[in-house]
Amino acid sequence: NSANNGMNGNGVHHVSVRAPVSVNPAKLKSHRQRWNVRPSEMSKKTLNPIRAIVDGMKLTPNPEKPMIALSIGDPTVFGNLPTDDTVLQAMKEAIDSHKYNGYAPSVGYQKSREAVSNFYSCPEAPLEGKDVILTSGCSQAIELAISVLCNPGDNILVPCPGFSLYKTLAVSMGIQVKHYNLLPEKSWEIDLQHLESLIDDKTACLIVNNPSNPCGSVFTKDHQHKILAVASRNCIPILADEIYGDMVFPGCDFQPLAPLSSDVPILSCGGLAKRWLVPGWRMGWILIHDRNDIFGTGIREGLVKLSQRILGPCTVVQGALESILNDTPPEFYQGTISFLKSNSEICFSELSTVPGLNPVMPTGAMYIMVGIEMEHFPDFQNDVEFTERLVTEQSVFCLPATAFEYPNFFRIVVTVPEEMMIEACIRIREFCARHYRPRSQDSHELDQ
Amino acid sequence: NSANNGMNGNGVHHVSVRAPVSVNPAKLKSHRQRWNVRPSEMSKKTLNPIRAIVDGMKLTPNPEKPMIALSIGDPTVFGNLPTDDTVLQAMKEAIDSHKYNGYAPSVGYQKSREAVSNFYSCPEAPLEGKDVILTSGCSQAIELAISVLCNPGDNILVPCPGFSLYKTLAVSMGIQVKHYNLLPEKSWEIDLQHLESLIDDKTACLIVNNPSNPCGSVFTKDHQHKILAVASRNCIPILADEIYGDMVFPGCDFQPLAPLSSDVPILSCGGLAKRWLVPGWRMGWILIHDRNDIFGTGIREGLVKLSQRILGPCTVVQGALESILNDTPPEFYQGTISFLKSNSEICFSELSTVPGLNPVMPTGAMYIMVGIEMEHFPDFQNDVEFTERLVTEQSVFCLPATAFEYPNFFRIVVTVPEEMMIEACIRIREFCARHYRPRSQDSHELDQ
Ligand SMILES: Cc1ncc(COP(=O)(O)O)c(C=O)c1O
Ligand SMILES: Cc1ncc(COP(=O)(O)O)c(C=O)c1O
Repeated sequence: NSANNGMNGNGVHHVSVRAPVSVNPAKLKSHRQRWNVRPSEMSKKTLNPIRAIVDGMKLTPNPEKPMIALSIGDPTVFGNLPTDDTVLQAMKEAIDSHKYNGYAPSVGYQKSREAVSNFYSCPEAPLEGKDVILTSGCSQAIELAISVLCNPGDNILVPCPGFSLYKTLAVSMGIQVKHYNLLPEKSWEIDLQHLESLIDDKTACLIVNNPSNPCGSVFTKDHQHKILAVASRNCIPILADEIYGDMVFPGCDFQPLAPLSSDVPILSCGGLAKRWLVPGWRMGWILIHDRNDIFGTGIREGLVKLSQRILGPCTVVQGALESILNDTPPEFYQGTISFLKSNSEICFSELSTVPGLNPVMPTGAMYIMVGIEMEHFPDFQNDVEFTERLVTEQSVFCLPATAFEYPNFFRIVVTVPEEMMIEACIRIREFCARHYRPRSQDSHELDQ
Repeated sequence: NSANNGMNGNGVHHVSVRAPVSVNPAKLKSHRQRWNVRPSEMSKKTLNPIRAIVDGMKLTPNPEKPMIALSIGDPTVFGNLPTDDTVLQAMKEAIDSHKYNGYAPSVGYQKSREAVSNFYSCPEAPLEGKDVILTSGCSQAIELAISVLCNPGDNILVPCPGFSLYKTLAVSMGIQVKHYNLLPEKSWEIDLQHLESLIDDKTACLIVNNPSNPCGSVFTKDHQHKILAVASRNCIPILADEIYGDMVFPGCDFQPLAPLSSDVPILSCGGLAKRWLVPGWRMGWILIHDRNDIFGTGIREGLVKLSQRILGPCTVVQGALESILNDTPPEFYQGTISFLKSNSEICFSELSTVPGLNPVMPTGAMYIMVGIEMEHFPDFQNDVEFTERLVTEQSVFCLPATAFEYPNFFRIVVTVPEEMMIEACIRIREFCARHYRPRSQDSHELDQ
């Protein structure tokens, strides 16, 4: 018929664009006939528990009190913890040099990799440039490490409470997550029996986060030896998330994991974010520790290949890296740490006298976990409700530890200015005093 | 027996670390008994054809001639194409402001997203800040776009010849790649019949790269309308890789794809790398064009979720973005383009008189494709051998187009200084003259 010719009665093309001669009617059937664009399974499986929980909370502060956010793991937000001038100067020099505008190798400039290996190398766990992969933040370091070690169907062991990104990444890749317990009564040491009981044939990697987000805990050397023993006898490689490495309070000692073991292969993930107080710059790294050649070339080549997907971190920051690592004065690091320690002590001593709360004193990183004796707060079902109402009534926002798979606790970030920390503690005390109820047992006694 | 007690005859622990009381012997069997850490399937499937081919080539230059690399798609390597001072200044101001050190939202600062949307918005395809996702380079923009649109088992349509990253990413995610042909004789327009013949139920996305790497071609408006018609009648969303957008020679006009269609949903990927000559800075973006609301909230939310895996690009570059986009003088862009055009013309006119070579004159981007009449070069089996020997004899390195799935061509990068381009062409001519053989048919005639 004439329509099939693409001509109407007047000999004018009228459907030409939509029906070219070449279309095979048999084929047409297999074509989609209407729009149906859906987000991929992978994007749907990429779940951020912090967002899920926080977005579900009604966070309307009390209009009479200015908001104090103790929830954000970003040390830069209040302006009281600026990075060092050396660090900024290094960036400006990198820009002025005109040398860091082009593509770097996808794993980073050799010189920048060597700057990192020199900084972290030690006699028991020597590192060279080739052992360093530069990444877009510690987040991408973790992503690459999990991607190279695990297949869909494998499982990984992650701390509970723990940083949520491990699970977010693993689940999106079809990797199962098994949570091993940390023990608050033992300064958040790992429950090693529990840890070992979780290991099976499909366990591809053990994630150890030390110093810890959200606990602010720092493992002793002895404890780390025991962790390594578990990994060693079960032949499980370790992803050591040491982004808070060296951020430990005076008197406490940070011990990186790798120098303690010569057999367990370790991918140690770190970056500039926390210690140098520039999380937005997205500079991270993987240190490959493999003195017994268990990773062999396979894992190294795998990491290189994966790095080629999106190429490395910003070259300007790479160019500045050597000077950032070598020239930042010790006083800068010390200044940060003593501030964090002092704020932690204020927070701990304030809250440890609040009936119903059990803060656990940290020894590093920038967080305090606070246990809530929920049985004394019948007004709230759980830590989410507790922290939600703390916003409504007192305009203080702490992250409910359900976000770290650890209900009945909340996490306080101790990077806020001291006055804010003090004011927040006063308000938390007021809030608790208002909602605290003696145990039903106690009230029973009173009834008699 | 005493060994099982962890004690020897003297009552001293001697295997305590390796056999804690808690180990259940029944469980031990399911544990790995020896180390066996293998790179994941995904890392093994992440194949970079350029690396695979280049690493397999014997690239030993002629010691008597200095090497000229026409292979690297990095406009900054020779120093003749510096970025504009405005761009560097914007970075230094961002650093000095002390405002861009903390975490940005994972999709980028709202202000920076708005700077991009303002820059690219037009009446036919208006954009707002919410339509922009900032990424770590255009590479990550492409990764996120493919990740959100495709599931394992789906297929995507990619240009042939084309940029290899599409395949690298897709294959690693278990997504099949179907190559549609570009037609050199039609200025590398898409073979639309071929394109449409490839579409099936599992086709999740059409990738259109314009201006093109490796062709240097720029589609006409008319041709883009036809591409859109194919997508529209088959209901296939488009990933438009427009990283070379606006890098077209005077007299030619770059037409972004999105304003030409109101129904086909388009994710347009771009970034600072090429036009602003700072590929190392890893600043890219996705522009979400969806005037008919076909992506809906699903794809947008999917992109946001995926961006949370590693968080966005470096905040310093984000902070500089507004000024980079708004304050870079037009003369800068024009300068780059006229240089690229002039170098392209030199290269084209030199090589088009070389017997056995068929360069295709580009109209944009920074590449020329050169066809090799292989039948006239019996010394070489293919473009890989041809370009390999060009290095050995003449110290000129061009990428064999097998790297773009397009044998019997090679790609020249036209960003090198003019003298180098001229010298390279002279050497290529010499090389071809030496190896050129008249057709066997011709020589047959001669024999008679
Ligand atoms: C334990 C832990 N690991 C990794 C990261 C991610 O670091 P980056 O910002 O460098 O990606 C964080 C950030 O808060 C963290 O707390
Ligand atoms: C066509 C095309 N798309 C994307 C990219 C990647 O750009 P970026 O360096 O911003 O990741 C390139 C780089 O060469 C390219 O040629």
